[in-house]
Amino acid sequence: MGKNRLEAFSDGVIAIIITIMVLELKVPHGADFRVLLPLWPVFMSYVLSFIYVGIYWNNHHHMLHAVKEVSGGVLWANLHLLFWLSLIPFVTAWMGENHFEMGPTAAYGFVLFMCAIAYEVLARGLIVNHPKNATLAAALVGDRKGKASIALYLVGILASWFAAWLGFLVYIGVAAMWLLPDRRIEEKVVEKAEQEEAQASGK
Amino acid sequence: MGKNRLEAFSDGVIAIIITIMVLELKVPHGADFRVLLPLWPVFMSYVLSFIYVGIYWNNHHHMLHAVKEVSGGVLWANLHLLFWLSLIPFVTAWMGENHFEMGPTAAYGFVLFMCAIAYEVLARGLIVNHPKNATLAAALVGDRKGKASIALYLVGILASWFAAWLGFLVYIGVAAMWLLPDRRIEEKVVEKAEQEEAQASGK
Amino acid sequence: MGKNRLEAFSDGVIAIIITIMVLELKVPHGADFRVLLPLWPVFMSYVLSFIYVGIYWNNHHHMLHAVKEVSGGVLWANLHLLFWLSLIPFVTAWMGENHFEMGPTAAYGFVLFMCAIAYEVLARGLIVNHPKNATLAAALVGDRKGKASIALYLVGILASWFAAWLGFLVYIGVAAMWLLPDRRIEEKVVEKAEQEEAQASGK
Amino acid sequence: MGKNRLEAFSDGVIAIIITIMVLELKVPHGADFRVLLPLWPVFMSYVLSFIYVGIYWNNHHHMLHAVKEVSGGVLWANLHLLFWLSLIPFVTAWMGENHFEMGPTAAYGFVLFMCAIAYEVLARGLIVNHPKNATLAAALVGDRKGKASIALYLVGILASWFAAWLGFLVYIGVAAMWLLPDRRIEEKVVEKAEQEEAQASGK
Repeated sequence: MGKNRLEAFSDGVIAIIITIMVLELKVPHGADFRVLLPLWPVFMSYVLSFIYVGIYWNNHHHMLHAVKEVSGGVLWANLHLLFWLSLIPFVTAWMGENHFEMGPTAAYGFVLFMCAIAYEVLARGLIVNHPKNATLAAALVGDRKGKASIALYLVGILASWFAAWLGFLVYIGVAAMWLLPDRRIEEKVVEKAEQEEAQASGK
Repeated sequence: MGKNRLEAFSDGVIAIIITIMVLELKVPHGADFRVLLPLWPVFMSYVLSFIYVGIYWNNHHHMLHAVKEVSGGVLWANLHLLFWLSLIPFVTAWMGENHFEMGPTAAYGFVLFMCAIAYEVLARGLIVNHPKNATLAAALVGDRKGKASIALYLVGILASWFAAWLGFLVYIGVAAMWLLPDRRIEEKVVEKAEQEEAQASGK
Repeated sequence: MGKNRLEAFSDGVIAIIITIMVLELKVPHGADFRVLLPLWPVFMSYVLSFIYVGIYWNNHHHMLHAVKEVSGGVLWANLHLLFWLSLIPFVTAWMGENHFEMGPTAAYGFVLFMCAIAYEVLARGLIVNHPKNATLAAALVGDRKGKASIALYLVGILASWFAAWLGFLVYIGVAAMWLLPDRRIEEKVVEKAEQEEAQASGK
Repeated sequence: MGKNRLEAFSDGVIAIIITIMVLELKVPHGADFRVLLPLWPVFMSYVLSFIYVGIYWNNHHHMLHAVKEVSGGVLWANLHLLFWLSLIPFVTAWMGENHFEMGPTAAYGFVLFMCAIAYEVLARGLIVNHPKNATLAAALVGDRKGKASIALYLVGILASWFAAWLGFLVYIGVAAMWLLPDRRIEEKVVEKAEQEEAQASGK
């Protein structure tokens, strides 16, 4: 089964998730700049969640780029990931409107944690379908970032119980870790593309 | 007429339907975890509807994968299906906010029933256009799940009049029936793809 | 310039327009079926607008199917059409919430009128870019439905001043006219595709 | 890495941004045409923002048409652009609901300014990846409109402090500058396509 429609549907859902979060930035009453001040926690949450959803789209893009077909199980693993991603706008708004209090900040970390687990499940499903896809396997088996993130989200959730801003800092740190470009996968994909081109022109 | 744009448009509408349902998870006031408790019926409804819309996307994906062209009638049969799917967020919210009372639970079942009917109509339209497409015909004619679902939705609606939770249980059961992977269609699609490859490489 | 991205973007906007209209079906308070009764004008408006947006997507699909390239002017003519389509949810809600009173019903007709004009402008822009595309020219020059619709929307707007339900009936009539399958264009597209296949296989 | 999914995702986000703005056109109470009058500032803001988002989609379309591959850095430069574009609905609503007062009009200009900066960053990222793409380089290096826009947004922000309508006029002027068709890029793209066709048929 082709992967194109899976990509198109995921792009659609992720595009909507990343965009409807801005609807939580409620238009303030009054034209003074001071009315924007109470919005800063909501805005900060929006920025962080925008980056996180962007990271997921980015990684999803990379991972599916490495495969050619998807099974029925992968379709559901993908929907499972989209389900947890769809809860990001809810916890983002809850965290922002409560100025990073303990409960919402821990809940935010929990949703990120479940997204990371769902991503791992999707990755493993793809590996099962592509046992001989060395690029994918190498990229994912060696993916220490994914495992570190899952651990760090747990740290962030625990940290939220002591001080919510500490949990928030941990989440920012995980996002920063992902934002740093991961040259490894990109090099592998480039190598593979070059090999395919070489094969294709060799025929 | 090509099917690509039909798929793209359907993906867009289904992606929006599956995502706007989360907007009904209204952000609670207060930072305590206890404020999440009253949300559980809305959340449960959301989970079930997410799974249902995912099932429809999944089946739609499989069914259109088996055909190559669509007629004007199929375009409208598809829009008819999208119309009933677009009412799922409404009945989901109504059922969730009323804690699974009789009326909304029956209405939820009615919309699921109409979606199933619309799917059947679309399937028959595709068969009329592809009378010689054995894969599609075999997949759909033998599709006992679709017919069973339609009957079970009626059972669920009737059950809602006795006890709403009974109707809800029936809907969960139908979803579970679909979630179990349907190896038959997948095998047929795989077989067909292999035959096509064999033919293509034989030329 | 390729037309694919124009189609993808239009599909996205039209998919969102057709779906966000359902958000105007506000979830009623209470679990009784009687609370659904006041929603019927909103629901009727939703059904009619869903059909209209479906008709536009359908026609847009057919028209762009006949061309291969789009100019910068066509991109803007397309955005102009999307702008008027984007106002349909607004007038739909206004008409529905006011139970088809004179003003909103006339406004609804005005937006439909502007959509039809914008569609004509887009069609003419495509003809200017494809002067030798006989399929497109034949399909559009002979398109009496488009011109009749524009006239009928004016009739509907005027009729709204006498009795809003009369205007609404006219809009239903125009939609019904479009829903009847237009065999002509389809036949021409089929013919063209057959000719292309014949040419391709002749090479 | 292919650019198709980047385009599809950007199209999705931009389509949602351009469409959710219409949700700020709150349905008025009452069926009289006079109830529409207080909506005119919101409507004016909507029209201007629709045109701006349309311009960005248009330019994005043209720019990515000239390239074939995108790097990880470009993916993030693109998300950065989408982030600022996603704030347009917020400032549009704030400006519209405050009838073009000083603060919101300046904030609107600031978001347009950041969008223009983000577009420049994306353009430079693409040039770095395609150092030998003469079409892209020529189109962008000579792109005086982009630089003029950035300067004019600053003028508009400053003008807003004196009189908000003056700032708004400046923004309208910038949009008008972009709406005028830019024959240069189109000619270059056409030339390139013709050369490619010539090469392809020459093989």
